[in-house]
Amino acid sequence: MNAAIDAWRRILRADQVDDSEPTLSRYSRSSQPQGTRPCCVLYPTCTSDVQEIIRIAWDYEVVVYPISRGKNWGYGDACAPTDGAAILDLSRMNRIVEVNTELAYAVIEPGVTQGQLYDYLQEHETGLWMDCTGAGLDASLVGNTLDRGFGHTRYGDHFLTSCGMEAVLADGRVLRTGFGHYPNAKASNVYPYGVGPYLDGLFCQSNYGIVTQLGLWLMPKPEAFCFFYVTVDHDEDIAIMVDALRPLRMAGILPAALHIGNDLRIFSSRGTYPWKETGGATPLPESERVRLRKMLGIGAWTVGSALTGTHAHVRASCAAVRQAVRGLGKLTFVSDRKMDLIRWAVPRLNRLGLAKRPGELLESLETLFATLKGKPTNQALRGTHWRLRRAPAEDSDDPLDVGGGLMWVSPVLPMTGRDALRVMRIIEPVFARYRFEPLATFTMINERAMIAILNVAFDKADAEESGAAVHCYHDLVDALMAEGYVLYRSGLSGLSKLADEGDPFWQVASEIKRTLDPKDIISRGRYIPPLRPKQAD
Amino acid sequence: MNAAIDAWRRILRADQVDDSEPTLSRYSRSSQPQGTRPCCVLYPTCTSDVQEIIRIAWDYEVVVYPISRGKNWGYGDACAPTDGAAILDLSRMNRIVEVNTELAYAVIEPGVTQGQLYDYLQEHETGLWMDCTGAGLDASLVGNTLDRGFGHTRYGDHFLTSCGMEAVLADGRVLRTGFGHYPNAKASNVYPYGVGPYLDGLFCQSNYGIVTQLGLWLMPKPEAFCFFYVTVDHDEDIAIMVDALRPLRMAGILPAALHIGNDLRIFSSRGTYPWKETGGATPLPESERVRLRKMLGIGAWTVGSALTGTHAHVRASCAAVRQAVRGLGKLTFVSDRKMDLIRWAVPRLNRLGLAKRPGELLESLETLFATLKGKPTNQALRGTHWRLRRAPAEDSDDPLDVGGGLMWVSPVLPMTGRDALRVMRIIEPVFARYRFEPLATFTMINERAMIAILNVAFDKADAEESGAAVHCYHDLVDALMAEGYVLYRSGLSGLSKLADEGDPFWQVASEIKRTLDPKDIISRGRYIPPLRPKQAD
Repeated sequence: MNAAIDAWRRILRADQVDDSEPTLSRYSRSSQPQGTRPCCVLYPTCTSDVQEIIRIAWDYEVVVYPISRGKNWGYGDACAPTDGAAILDLSRMNRIVEVNTELAYAVIEPGVTQGQLYDYLQEHETGLWMDCTGAGLDASLVGNTLDRGFGHTRYGDHFLTSCGMEAVLADGRVLRTGFGHYPNAKASNVYPYGVGPYLDGLFCQSNYGIVTQLGLWLMPKPEAFCFFYVTVDHDEDIAIMVDALRPLRMAGILPAALHIGNDLRIFSSRGTYPWKETGGATPLPESERVRLRKMLGIGAWTVGSALTGTHAHVRASCAAVRQAVRGLGKLTFVSDRKMDLIRWAVPRLNRLGLAKRPGELLESLETLFATLKGKPTNQALRGTHWRLRRAPAEDSDDPLDVGGGLMWVSPVLPMTGRDALRVMRIIEPVFARYRFEPLATFTMINERAMIAILNVAFDKADAEESGAAVHCYHDLVDALMAEGYVLYRSGLSGLSKLADEGDPFWQVASEIKRTLDPKDIISRGRYIPPLRPKQAD
Repeated sequence: MNAAIDAWRRILRADQVDDSEPTLSRYSRSSQPQGTRPCCVLYPTCTSDVQEIIRIAWDYEVVVYPISRGKNWGYGDACAPTDGAAILDLSRMNRIVEVNTELAYAVIEPGVTQGQLYDYLQEHETGLWMDCTGAGLDASLVGNTLDRGFGHTRYGDHFLTSCGMEAVLADGRVLRTGFGHYPNAKASNVYPYGVGPYLDGLFCQSNYGIVTQLGLWLMPKPEAFCFFYVTVDHDEDIAIMVDALRPLRMAGILPAALHIGNDLRIFSSRGTYPWKETGGATPLPESERVRLRKMLGIGAWTVGSALTGTHAHVRASCAAVRQAVRGLGKLTFVSDRKMDLIRWAVPRLNRLGLAKRPGELLESLETLFATLKGKPTNQALRGTHWRLRRAPAEDSDDPLDVGGGLMWVSPVLPMTGRDALRVMRIIEPVFARYRFEPLATFTMINERAMIAILNVAFDKADAEESGAAVHCYHDLVDALMAEGYVLYRSGLSGLSKLADEGDPFWQVASEIKRTLDPKDIISRGRYIPPLRPKQAD
């Protein structure tokens, strides 16, 4: 290990290798109950740095764990699956290599943040929108895409809207996918498959290579935009809502990654647990839940999404939504014009003291509008404060600074009301058993499937609660998988539940790993189980 | 070889192994100038047959070449890349395993034909539409998807709308992709990626396994449908048309795989080369081209596609198309209602002799309507007759029966007018040099890229013309690839042009092949170059 660090020091600048105690401690922090500790942190600035680093790792058989920005909140943050890895922090590889306004795509390095690309698109008046997640301004777009994360717009499926990868392999070779490996290739960032096998899927949720460049598709700003939300009163109305909206999603009328969140999810985005009102009791008593719903003027579930297109298309889509949910829930449209009106009116209403909580309404609408137009904010990160006993310092949005504990459980289910209800019925008793609240969102990720994002939120300062969170997490995953609702993505704690040695899928995944990285030096244990020593032939 | 055939005979029924001369001759036929000859043809009826067959192939180190229906027209038909392979004809594995009307998908075996699935969806009144290609009623859906073929609707990208594979590996293991390998998995056919690496891309345009089952997404019949077409007068107007329509494609207003075909493509779909009128001269003289355009009432290029959605959406989309092409071309809309009117009027006009060629107009509209609604026909197969000297017998639509020669050249290009023009400027002199016509279609396959489908059509009965076709093909591919326009898919003749030993992409592709199929028994030479004997370690 030390020999490897010495070798890295010889080829890199002094500020590119850091094994100081404060740095190692900082990179060990996690929103999970337990992080892992690296041996050092390396800061490459270009692809050839990555190649040289990996060649040394290969020679010394040291594990390197690439992170883009390390903001993998709730899944493992910047932590490797195992202690002692060299963290390959790609944050200094943050070039926006190309933005093509005619064909609406960007080519970026892993260190490019959501905030950075957004600012670039604005400052250069590109007329292009990106899709963003709730992971904040400093989160990496590449990192999210490689873990198959998603956002809120028509381009919400990030892997689906990526096109063209550059990846460094364990032996230092640089592989370009799609058409990118042909000289003068014209369509590298507009047609994903190239010719021959389509390899991009190999580099997501795996450890076969280090992606150092990625093409991302962007959206021309639509002519018209209208936000809508629907609230329903009862827990079981989720089923009605899913079944009412599925035909619209499937017909292409709701092309965005549409989200349906429960009341608890909204409470957690607006403030922390009502410790005072509940006298410290957990989980949230029904009476308090009802009080909070009333106070915020929300129902059991809220659907929120945006309609985009020409003015006529948006009008047609509004009509289709209106017809689909008629009699089922309370529907509100907020167009850009209406939003301007609200922006004008709110300060005046505030001054006059006439309206109920108008400032809060405006703030949450502003956040939603931003997100649905691909403008990243740090707002959603506050959801990690939910169970904190002490109010966090105002000056940091970083969950790791405030001690917010967060474990995502994110199963995939068919887009039916039955399945949504079934998932809720599975998880509710588990959350209750460990005195947590079932914070839940269902995202219509494509035209047929939803991803449920369930959140075990806890206070890292409370050892007992942290312990309960771990058990709650494992019970949730086990209960869901037993009924065939498998995770779309996993945190460090869930990885060992996914792979089965007897399953040809995982056998093949491991065989590919052994071929591309026989010493298992890239992200050992990430999705692909650690390789066993090979049997003598 | 004979030992393997004997072993297959021992485990299969007599009618499942055929090495008779007529069968081998039949499977050697090709729309390419030259086919290859198999050693025998095997007819498995289920996945376990395939497993047993491949185990014997493994033991005897014999190459097997799976075909679904063998209708890979213009790319190699049922022929393996090399002589002497055992053809694994999967046509008897033709079960429609499941059709889910709520979530709009089907799970099918490779032998299921376009015509079969279409009939099933109609007969069972599912209310679902499929996407089809022009390859005819008897072509396989799975085979087309695995070669990343495309059709004409919103679900025109067949790989993109497939979800969940079952594949038999070279050692007989059965691998299920996505979530399909988890017990009780609920989302196997609604969410493609599963968890961990997304492996489906490996089984397209490769030879890593034998796909024995595939999930395909279907479309609920839309509320409204309107066909439109635009014609432009001049060759170079293709550029204007592409640039005018790109913003609509990118905004999601034209969600279908939209096609733009030239006059020659339309001539070839309506009849054969005017041998008499040209006195046998080739390529088609300009004067004759002008005469044919006039006679058929078409321009240099014709864009055709369908708008679907609610009535209001279709109206809005019609308006957007009208605005986009105003002043640029001649635009016609044909709604379902208008089509009914034409159907009513045409026989009457015919009787009265009032209209110019109304029967022909109706016939071509009927074909277009069918295709755009996912109803397969054999109409497009007649395009292979273009250069035939003798009129083909009326009773066969099979290009192999009529001797139609066909070599597709299909480069991918960015969706810009510049690139479309450039591709035409590259190919025109090459076609002219060999006295062929540049039959061309540009398909907007996604929101940023087009696939140009160029067709070297020739008469297999004419040896000289067949020889010229081969040279023309190679010159076209070379000229296009030199400028970075790489093929999206390749026929047998083009395979050797794709892979480069020094390129890490192809190195990795071969390393994966060596891992999964070390004896190179599945489809040797298909996209992945034949494995070389491994060097001693």
